[in-house]
Amino acid sequence: MERAINFNAGPAALPLAALERARDELLDFAGTGMSVMEHSHRGKEYERVHDEAIALLRETAGIGDDTEVLFVQGGASQQFAQIPMNFLPDGGSADYFVHGAWGEKAVSEAQAAAKWSSGKVRVAATTAQGKQYTRVPRAADIQLDPNAAYVHFTSNETIHGVQFHDFPDTGKAPLVCDMSSDFLWRKTDFSRFSFVYAGAQKNVGPSGIVIVLAKKDFIASGRRDLPKIFQYRTVAENNSLYNTPPTFAIYLVRNVLLWIKESGGLARIEEQNRQKAALVYGAIDAHPQLYTSPVDRDSRSTMNVVFRLPSEEHEARFLAEAKKRHMIGLKGHRSVGGIRASLYNAVSLEWTKALVDLMGDFAKSA
Amino acid sequence: MERAINFNAGPAALPLAALERARDELLDFAGTGMSVMEHSHRGKEYERVHDEAIALLRETAGIGDDTEVLFVQGGASQQFAQIPMNFLPDGGSADYFVHGAWGEKAVSEAQAAAKWSSGKVRVAATTAQGKQYTRVPRAADIQLDPNAAYVHFTSNETIHGVQFHDFPDTGKAPLVCDMSSDFLWRKTDFSRFSFVYAGAQKNVGPSGIVIVLAKKDFIASGRRDLPKIFQYRTVAENNSLYNTPPTFAIYLVRNVLLWIKESGGLARIEEQNRQKAALVYGAIDAHPQLYTSPVDRDSRSTMNVVFRLPSEEHEARFLAEAKKRHMIGLKGHRSVGGIRASLYNAVSLEWTKALVDLMGDFAKSA
Repeated sequence: MERAINFNAGPAALPLAALERARDELLDFAGTGMSVMEHSHRGKEYERVHDEAIALLRETAGIGDDTEVLFVQGGASQQFAQIPMNFLPDGGSADYFVHGAWGEKAVSEAQAAAKWSSGKVRVAATTAQGKQYTRVPRAADIQLDPNAAYVHFTSNETIHGVQFHDFPDTGKAPLVCDMSSDFLWRKTDFSRFSFVYAGAQKNVGPSGIVIVLAKKDFIASGRRDLPKIFQYRTVAENNSLYNTPPTFAIYLVRNVLLWIKESGGLARIEEQNRQKAALVYGAIDAHPQLYTSPVDRDSRSTMNVVFRLPSEEHEARFLAEAKKRHMIGLKGHRSVGGIRASLYNAVSLEWTKALVDLMGDFAKSA
Repeated sequence: MERAINFNAGPAALPLAALERARDELLDFAGTGMSVMEHSHRGKEYERVHDEAIALLRETAGIGDDTEVLFVQGGASQQFAQIPMNFLPDGGSADYFVHGAWGEKAVSEAQAAAKWSSGKVRVAATTAQGKQYTRVPRAADIQLDPNAAYVHFTSNETIHGVQFHDFPDTGKAPLVCDMSSDFLWRKTDFSRFSFVYAGAQKNVGPSGIVIVLAKKDFIASGRRDLPKIFQYRTVAENNSLYNTPPTFAIYLVRNVLLWIKESGGLARIEEQNRQKAALVYGAIDAHPQLYTSPVDRDSRSTMNVVFRLPSEEHEARFLAEAKKRHMIGLKGHRSVGGIRASLYNAVSLEWTKALVDLMGDFAKSA
């Protein structure tokens, strides 16, 4: 088998070691004669995996006892609705930053969900130019409501390739962050955040599981009049085992986190991620007649490198050449077009260099 | 490897063929050089699996064009809240039947969720005797509200081992059913139901995915003021691809449905399931001094056979003997105690006979 060079935006490439382990023990987990999928979520064999995944998240993210690590379902898209349901008090308001498609969706879902508390949702900063986004909000763009119940932002916009490198100053309101597409790509000071959520299917696992890091006191401040299943306190009080979790997805997250640890930890992963992004942006900047990045330099995403060629015909030829070299997932999102190379943790330096070679060769022939 | 004899209540045993296929192609799905987990949910390779799973569900369940087949997340427990949010009109009411722990939870979550519509939730029938349940409601127990927006019941109570064999007459209100623990165990006339939901982790797959069969007109009647992620119409309009689905779980459901088809279809599965249940209840009834079923004969579950021994000490010895014979998952739910043998589709006749042998041998020695 020749392994495909996978630049998918998510679900995305997983570390080979994590997949090989899953394959090797798929029918016989820990000598039990059963797949990990066939184990009860209340049995000690699965519980060891579950607790190890949580412990590895604590260790990798470097978070303290004031913070819960939770596994929830429904994708980050469900959290768009569930967060305001939990954290908007009666008649309260929350502030949202928008610098891409996911921030837009977060606002729109929160506005619908605000019905629960007769609350409202404000856009406190946006960098929209029509449907275009080329940068994160800067201090001058931000108008905070001093009474906001929380401030929500998206750390990395997967579709537009726009990323916060320094997190914004948001005053005293609890900070809530959708970190789906750049969770655990670098060392991060999570102590600033009251609530971080991330779909696993970019940097840390398969689809079907969302990781939440949330301050205990913030969870405790959530509404109590919701169905239990929607209260984060229910998840926290039951160690993410209130109802049956997606056990196999959590098992794979565990495998990926072990791979991060065995690869030298987050510091090493960060170093490599920065190197990968520098290589691809370098190739863009080296051929300005052929490749252009629509994103301002200070907002260029290290995870999703978006670029355009002079015409759609050029882009189609570029993608065809990539396919010949066993590269997949380079087509930009249908809503924006162009090329997008997602360089998540499991994308190797070798794969990235192959892409840079393609960009160089294509520039010579174009 | 010796395969464990797995009577887990869910997550439960999966067909060996479905697991072997998953193992064999875990690193290289359909010759693509990638795991199915690494494919985009918008790519043609995954889409083929997704559409095949839906087509197999349509074929296996024998459902028509008036009905949608949906994949949703959050477990059946989330549907407890999401169903009333969708289907309670302003100030409306819904009727619930209760004959076990899951029905109780469905009511309690629906009562909280009814806040959305200022609606209410009625218990239209219950067979509770304290915390005990020994049968399904009969006609005389049922007091329907003629204006109910829908009637909800649980077809099989996993914990109490209490199952509807003939579905109740519920008048004209749309019928909604939690079929999590007896979905696709037999040929079923789904045309009676407006909405059926089932966590996959009993009869048709791993945990982390819920299957919904819902009439198109019922979905269309749902509220439009909910966050999009909670509207079943959003799922239907997007072929269950509104947001990233748990692709690997759906892939495994596909594998299990193929196994059902290749095993002779639902008619053959039903025949074997009835045979399995008859064998275990036969063993209970053959040793009335040792084994007792707390469930009325007309409500005995074919999926979860619950029985007691004269003392907890007997039960502990029975479980120890089972363990020696590589049988797992026979301990009753912590809330009710005793023994429970779950005989889902993937539990073979051979495994069931091994359990019956154990019951016979234990009776001789006890």
